[in-house]
Amino acid sequence: MYPNVQAYDRGVMFNPDGRLFQVEYAKEAVRNGATSIGLIAKDSVVFVAHKNIAEPLAIPATIQKVFRIDSHIGATYSGMVADGLHIIDVARNRAQNHRLIYDDIKSVEALAKDISAYMMQATQYGGLRPYAVSFLVGGIDSASRLFEIEPGASFLGYKADAIGVGKKTATEMLMKEYKDNMTTEDAVGLGVKKIKKISEGRLSEESLDVGYVESGSDYVLLSPSEINQYL
Amino acid sequence: MYPNVQAYDRGVMFNPDGRLFQVEYAKEAVRNGATSIGLIAKDSVVFVAHKNIAEPLAIPATIQKVFRIDSHIGATYSGMVADGLHIIDVARNRAQNHRLIYDDIKSVEALAKDISAYMMQATQYGGLRPYAVSFLVGGIDSASRLFEIEPGASFLGYKADAIGVGKKTATEMLMKEYKDNMTTEDAVGLGVKKIKKISEGRLSEESLDVGYVESGSDYVLLSPSEINQYL
Amino acid sequence: MYPNVQAYDRGVMFNPDGRLFQVEYAKEAVRNGATSIGLIAKDSVVFVAHKNIAEPLAIPATIQKVFRIDSHIGATYSGMVADGLHIIDVARNRAQNHRLIYDDIKSVEALAKDISAYMMQATQYGGLRPYAVSFLVGGIDSASRLFEIEPGASFLGYKADAIGVGKKTATEMLMKEYKDNMTTEDAVGLGVKKIKKISEGRLSEESLDVGYVESGSDYVLLSPSEINQYL
Amino acid sequence: MYPNVQAYDRGVMFNPDGRLFQVEYAKEAVRNGATSIGLIAKDSVVFVAHKNIAEPLAIPATIQKVFRIDSHIGATYSGMVADGLHIIDVARNRAQNHRLIYDDIKSVEALAKDISAYMMQATQYGGLRPYAVSFLVGGIDSASRLFEIEPGASFLGYKADAIGVGKKTATEMLMKEYKDNMTTEDAVGLGVKKIKKISEGRLSEESLDVGYVESGSDYVLLSPSEINQYL
Amino acid sequence: MYPNVQAYDRGVMFNPDGRLFQVEYAKEAVRNGATSIGLIAKDSVVFVAHKNIAEPLAIPATIQKVFRIDSHIGATYSGMVADGLHIIDVARNRAQNHRLIYDDIKSVEALAKDISAYMMQATQYGGLRPYAVSFLVGGIDSASRLFEIEPGASFLGYKADAIGVGKKTATEMLMKEYKDNMTTEDAVGLGVKKIKKISEGRLSEESLDVGYVESGSDYVLLSPSEINQYL
Amino acid sequence: MYPNVQAYDRGVMFNPDGRLFQVEYAKEAVRNGATSIGLIAKDSVVFVAHKNIAEPLAIPATIQKVFRIDSHIGATYSGMVADGLHIIDVARNRAQNHRLIYDDIKSVEALAKDISAYMMQATQYGGLRPYAVSFLVGGIDSASRLFEIEPGASFLGYKADAIGVGKKTATEMLMKEYKDNMTTEDAVGLGVKKIKKISEGRLSEESLDVGYVESGSDYVLLSPSEINQYL
Amino acid sequence: MYPNVQAYDRGVMFNPDGRLFQVEYAKEAVRNGATSIGLIAKDSVVFVAHKNIAEPLAIPATIQKVFRIDSHIGATYSGMVADGLHIIDVARNRAQNHRLIYDDIKSVEALAKDISAYMMQATQYGGLRPYAVSFLVGGIDSASRLFEIEPGASFLGYKADAIGVGKKTATEMLMKEYKDNMTTEDAVGLGVKKIKKISEGRLSEESLDVGYVESGSDYVLLSPSEINQYL
Repeated sequence: MYPNVQAYDRGVMFNPDGRLFQVEYAKEAVRNGATSIGLIAKDSVVFVAHKNIAEPLAIPATIQKVFRIDSHIGATYSGMVADGLHIIDVARNRAQNHRLIYDDIKSVEALAKDISAYMMQATQYGGLRPYAVSFLVGGIDSASRLFEIEPGASFLGYKADAIGVGKKTATEMLMKEYKDNMTTEDAVGLGVKKIKKISEGRLSEESLDVGYVESGSDYVLLSPSEINQYL
Repeated sequence: MYPNVQAYDRGVMFNPDGRLFQVEYAKEAVRNGATSIGLIAKDSVVFVAHKNIAEPLAIPATIQKVFRIDSHIGATYSGMVADGLHIIDVARNRAQNHRLIYDDIKSVEALAKDISAYMMQATQYGGLRPYAVSFLVGGIDSASRLFEIEPGASFLGYKADAIGVGKKTATEMLMKEYKDNMTTEDAVGLGVKKIKKISEGRLSEESLDVGYVESGSDYVLLSPSEINQYL
Repeated sequence: MYPNVQAYDRGVMFNPDGRLFQVEYAKEAVRNGATSIGLIAKDSVVFVAHKNIAEPLAIPATIQKVFRIDSHIGATYSGMVADGLHIIDVARNRAQNHRLIYDDIKSVEALAKDISAYMMQATQYGGLRPYAVSFLVGGIDSASRLFEIEPGASFLGYKADAIGVGKKTATEMLMKEYKDNMTTEDAVGLGVKKIKKISEGRLSEESLDVGYVESGSDYVLLSPSEINQYL
Repeated sequence: MYPNVQAYDRGVMFNPDGRLFQVEYAKEAVRNGATSIGLIAKDSVVFVAHKNIAEPLAIPATIQKVFRIDSHIGATYSGMVADGLHIIDVARNRAQNHRLIYDDIKSVEALAKDISAYMMQATQYGGLRPYAVSFLVGGIDSASRLFEIEPGASFLGYKADAIGVGKKTATEMLMKEYKDNMTTEDAVGLGVKKIKKISEGRLSEESLDVGYVESGSDYVLLSPSEINQYL
Repeated sequence: MYPNVQAYDRGVMFNPDGRLFQVEYAKEAVRNGATSIGLIAKDSVVFVAHKNIAEPLAIPATIQKVFRIDSHIGATYSGMVADGLHIIDVARNRAQNHRLIYDDIKSVEALAKDISAYMMQATQYGGLRPYAVSFLVGGIDSASRLFEIEPGASFLGYKADAIGVGKKTATEMLMKEYKDNMTTEDAVGLGVKKIKKISEGRLSEESLDVGYVESGSDYVLLSPSEINQYL
Repeated sequence: MYPNVQAYDRGVMFNPDGRLFQVEYAKEAVRNGATSIGLIAKDSVVFVAHKNIAEPLAIPATIQKVFRIDSHIGATYSGMVADGLHIIDVARNRAQNHRLIYDDIKSVEALAKDISAYMMQATQYGGLRPYAVSFLVGGIDSASRLFEIEPGASFLGYKADAIGVGKKTATEMLMKEYKDNMTTEDAVGLGVKKIKKISEGRLSEESLDVGYVESGSDYVLLSPSEINQYL
Repeated sequence: MYPNVQAYDRGVMFNPDGRLFQVEYAKEAVRNGATSIGLIAKDSVVFVAHKNIAEPLAIPATIQKVFRIDSHIGATYSGMVADGLHIIDVARNRAQNHRLIYDDIKSVEALAKDISAYMMQATQYGGLRPYAVSFLVGGIDSASRLFEIEPGASFLGYKADAIGVGKKTATEMLMKEYKDNMTTEDAVGLGVKKIKKISEGRLSEESLDVGYVESGSDYVLLSPSEINQYL
C-alpha cells in the first residue's frame, strides 16, 4: 500500500497512518526479551522475572531482572539490558529525590509517570532512538499498585501483567488463574509456574528473579534457595 | 499527481499545496484514539471520555482521560498517551504560574492559547515531531468555555465537541441532540449516551471518565458508581 | 524542465531560477485561508475578515481574525491559525516594548518591518519552515497606513488590499469600487460586501470580524449586532 | 556533462568546477529584481531605483529602494525584499557603531567590506542560504565612491553601475553615455532616462526612488514632484 | 525479506525486528579482534590475552591487552585498539573517583555497570557510533567477580569467559576444562593453553599478556619470563 | 570506476582513494581566479597580481589583490573574493596580536602556519565548506620568505611562485627566468612581464597590483604611474 | 557482495563487517604520502623523512617532516600536510603541559597515547572526518621508544618502522638490515639508504629531513650538509 514504507521508519517520524515506526520497532526488541511478570496480591506486589541464560559458565546471579527502587517500590523490565539499567537508575534517583525534597515516599503512580515522561522524550526529539524496554513498576502506597510502561511511553495499571517474549501466553494464563487477594506466597507461586510453562520446564532457581513489596516492610528479594521452594 | 509524495512528509516541511504532512499524520494518530466529548451546559462544562481497554487484568482507573487543570478548568484528550500527559502537565504549570504571578485564575481561552502556542513549536522546528494529541479544554471564568486544540495547534471554541475515533459520528449526533442550557446531569447523560453508541453498547462505568466544572465550585470527577447511574 | 523539481523544495534552498520553494508552498497555504480585507478610509483604517466555520456547534466568536495590536494599530491574517496567533503575539510585544522604551507609539511601518524581519528569519535558517501566514497590518500615526506582509517576508503598503482565498477576486472588486476619503462606515460596508460576494452570500454577522482604528480614538472591534447592520 | 547536477546545488557546496550553485541561484533571484542604478557625479553619488509595482491599490511610496545609511552614505538593492531590508539594517548599525566608537564617519569602502563580510558568512556555513540581494553602496568620504556587492559577497567599485533585471541593458547604455564630472542633476537625469528605457516608458514619479549624497551636505531623497521633473 | 536492509543500518536506529544494526556491526569488529580470556580461580581472577602481531620489527610489549584498573580490579578487551584504550581510561577514572569520594574501593560490579552505562550512551545518540570493543572486567571485593560488557552495553557475570576471534572455540574448551577453586597458577595455565590452541601453536611469551588480581595483594602483571613457564 | 563518484564529494568526506573532493573542487575555483605572482629578490619579497576586470565602468583601484599584512609581511590571493578578504582580515589580526602580546614582529612562517591552521578547520568539520582561495604570503624577518597556502591548507615555501588561472604557464616561465639576488626592480619587472604574457598583452597599470616588502623599510604599494614604468 | 557498499562509507559508521570506511580511506591518503622512517639505535631514536618536491622553485627547507616535540621526543608524519601540522601542535602542547604540571618530562608512550586519544575522537563523532596522517613518535625516557599511530588511532611500538607510500618496501628492507644497537650514524645511514632506494636514487640532501634524539642531549636536526654525508 505504501510502496516505500521504509521512508517513515527512520528517525522519529509519523507514517501516513499516524504511527511512529521507530517506537514499534523498539517494541519488537522488547518482544524478544525474557519474560517478566508482576502481580498484585493481598498485601503485596510480586515480581517474577526470567533470566534466559544459555551459557553454562555465566553466573545468572549477575543478571538482575527485579529491582528495588525504594523500600515500597519494585520494578522489572524486558528488552535491551543497557536501556533497562539506565531507566532503573533514573527511577531510583527520582524516588530518592522525592524523599529528600518532601520527606515522604513517592507514590507508585507518580514514579511510573516520571518513567513515562522520561521515555517520552526519546520518542519526540530527532537524533535519539526510543528506549527498547518495557517496565513493570509496582509497590504499595495507600494501596497496592502495578503499572506497565512501554517504549512508546504510555502506561497502564494492572492487577497482573506480563512483558517480554511470553507476554501473550503469560497474560492469557494469568487471566484464568489470577485471583484477587492471593497471599504473597500464592502470587509468587503463580508467577513462577507461568514462567516455568513459558520456558518449557527448563528452569532452575538460578534463572529466576523474584522480589516483592509487602505492606509494612521493606522490599524483599528472594534467595535462590527460597525460589527453589516454588519450583 | 505528485509522484513522490513521500518527499514532503518527513520533517516538518510544506508540500506544493501548502500542507504539513507530519501534522496531518499526527492527526491520523488522534483519529485512532478513544473518543472524548465536551459539552457546555447551563452553569457547567462537562467532559465524558472513553477508556478503550480490552485487557481484563488492566485496571481502568489507572488510565485518566479527564483531568483537573485548575479548580475552574478541566481537560480531556485523544491520541498518544504519553504526549497527552505531557501537555496536561504543561497546562497545569501554566495555570499555577498564572495564579502565582497574578493572584487570579487564568482565563480558559488564555490557557487554550498557551497549549496551542506550545504545540505550535513542535510544528515549526526541524528535529521535532508534532504532538499526536487533540485536546478539549473547558471551564468557567466570566462564562462557560470549551476549546478544541489539534496537532496543528489551531484552536476553536465549541458548544459541544468530540475528538478521537468517534469524532465524526459523535459530532453528528451532538448536532441533533445538544441543547443550550442543559443541566449538568443532562449534559453528562448526553455525553455518556453518545459514547455508549460509538462503543456499540459495550461500556461499563469503569471504561468512562466523567468530570465537570460547575459555576461556583471546584472541578468534580465522578466516581464509577456515580457514572453507573448514567449507563 | 527540471526533472526532479522536488530536489529544491525541501529545506530553505534556492532552485536554479532563484526561487525558494518552501516559501512558495507556504504562500499556497495562505491561499487556502479565509479572506481578510483591509482599507484606508478618510480618518481610519478598516479590517474585515471572514471566519469560515462550517461546524454548527462551533462558536465563531472564539475565532479571532481581526486584532488590536495597540491603540493605534490593528491587524488581520490569513493562513495557518497557530502561526497567525504566534506572530500577533510577537507584534503586540514589539508595540508594547516601543512604548516602554521610548514612551511613544510605534509607527505602523516600523511594526510592519518588525514582523517582516521576524518572518524573514524563518526563510533563512535551515531546520525552520517559513510561517504560513499573510498579514494586513494597519493603523494611524502621522497618517493612515496599511501594509501586507507575506510568507517570504516582503511587505508593501496599500490603500486597500485582500489576502487569503479570495485575494484575487476581492482585489479586482476593490480596484473598481474603492475610493479615497471614504467614511469609516462606507469602508466597512465595502469590505463586508466584498466578503459576502466571495462567500457567495452565505454570511452571518457571526462569521465576520470587523475592526478599525480611527484617528483620535482607540481601536474598535464591532459587535455582531453592529456587523449585522452591514449585511 | 554532470548527469546529476542537482547533487551539488543543495547546501553550500562546491561542484567539480569549483562553483557554489546556491550562490549562483541566489544571483538568479537578483536578476529577477527591479533595476537599480548608481552613478558617481562631480561632487556626488546618485542612486536611481525602479519600483516595479503592478497593483493599482498599492502605495509605491511604501516600497523603499534607495536608503540613507549615514549622512554621507546611501544604498540601493535589487532582489528579495526581506533580505535587502535586513542587510540595510545591518549596514546602518555598522555605520552608527563606527561613529560611536571612533567619533568619525565610516569610510564607504569599509562599509562595503562590512556588508561583504556579513554576506560571506551565509555562503560558508551549512544550514544557511546565501542572501538573494545585490547592493549598490556609495557615498563621499575623501572622494566619491560606489561599490557593488553581490550574493557571493565579492565587491567592486564602479563609476556607474546597474543591478537587477535591467543590469545588462542599463550597463551597456551607461557605458556609452556616462561622463566624468557630470552635475548631480545630469547624473539623476541619466539614471532616470535609463530606467525609463528599461521599463519601456511605463514610468511615473511614483515608481522611482531617487537619492544622492552630495559633498558637504546630508543625504538627499527626492520627492515625487522633484522626480517628476526628470521624466 | 527487507529489500533495502541497508536503510536501517546507518545511524543508531532500529530495524523492523528491533535490532540496532550499528551495534551488531560493532560486535563484528570485536569478533575480528585477538582473543582475551578471563577466569575466576580460588582466590583470584585471571586474565590471559593474545597480542596478534605479525610484524617482526614491532615490539609486542608496547601493546597492552591486560590492564590494572585499580589494585583489586583488572581488565582486558578485544576489538578496536583506540576504543579499548579510551574505555580503559574511563574505567580507571571511575575507580579513582570512587576512592577519592568514598575513601573505599569501588565494587567490581559497580565498575562494570559504569562502563556499561558509558558505552550505552554511544548506542542512544545520533551522530555517535557504538564503541567497537568487548571487555572482561574482573577483580575481588567481597568475592571474586568477572563481567563481560559488549558493544551493545549489556553485561553479564561469568566464572570463565572469552572474547574476540576465538570466543566460540575458547568458550567451548573452557566449558569442559574449567573447574571451581583452581589455583591461580592452574587458571593461568588453562588460559594460556587455550590461547595457544586458538593461535595454532604459534605463540611466544611476547605475544601474551597475563595479569591477575589475588585476594589480599595488588594486581599482578606477569613478565615475559614468567609467562614463558606456562608455554 | 566508482559509478557514483558524486557520493563522496558532498560534505568533507574521503573517497576510497583518500581524497577530499570538496577540497579539490575548491582548488578548481582557485584555478579560475586571476593570476598572482610572488618573488624573492635580493633584499625584498615582491608581489604582482592581475586584476581581471572586463567592465569599462568598474574602477580597478577598488579591487585589491596585494595586501599589507604588517610592515614586514605582504600577501596576495587568487580565488573567491569574499573568502580572500576574510582570510586577509584573519592574517592581519594574527600579526597585530603577536605584536601586542610579544612586542615583536611575527615571523613570516608563523603567519603562514596560522593561515594554514585556520583554513584546515574548514576541511575538517561537517557543515563548513573549504575556503576557495590560495595565498602567497611573504616578507622579511631574519631572511626573505615566500609561502603558498592552498585550499587544502598545506603550505610550502618558494623562491618564486604563481597562483590562479596562469599558475602553470607563469611557473614554467619563472623557472626559466627567475634568478637569485635580483634587485627589487628586476623582480617587479619579471612579475609584470609574466602577467602581461598570460593576459596576452591586454594589460594596463590599472589592472595590476604591485607591492613589496624591502629589508629595513615598511611594506610598499606601487602607484599606477609607478607600475606603468614596468609595462 | 554488498551491492551498495557506498552506503557505509560516508560519515563514521560501521559496515556489516565491522569496518569504518572513512578511516580506511584516510589510511589510503596516508599511503599516498612521502615515506618517513624511524629507527631505534643504541642510545638514540632516529627519524629520516622524504620530502617529495617536484617543483624547482620550491624551497624544500620550508617543508618540515621531522619535528622536535620536546628535548627528548621527536616525530615524523606521512599524509595530509595540514592534518600533520595540526597534530604536531597538539603533541607539543601536551608535552609542555606535562612539564608545567609535573615538572618532569612526559614519557614517550604517554605522548603517543595522547595523540592516539586525540585522533580517536575524530573517528567517533559524526560531522568530523578522521585525520589523514600516520605518525612515528619516538624518544628516550627510561629507554628508547618508537611508536606508530595511524588514522584509526591505534598505536604500536617498533624497533624500526616506515609509513607513507614506501611503507611496504621500506619495512621489508628494514626487516633484513636493521640490527639492534646500531650507532646513531649507522641508523641514519640505513634510513637514508632506504629512502634513496624508494625514491629510485633521485634524492638530494634538500629533499630529506633527518633528526634524532640521543641519550643525554637535546633533540638534533641535521643540516643539509650533514645529511649530504650520508648520500
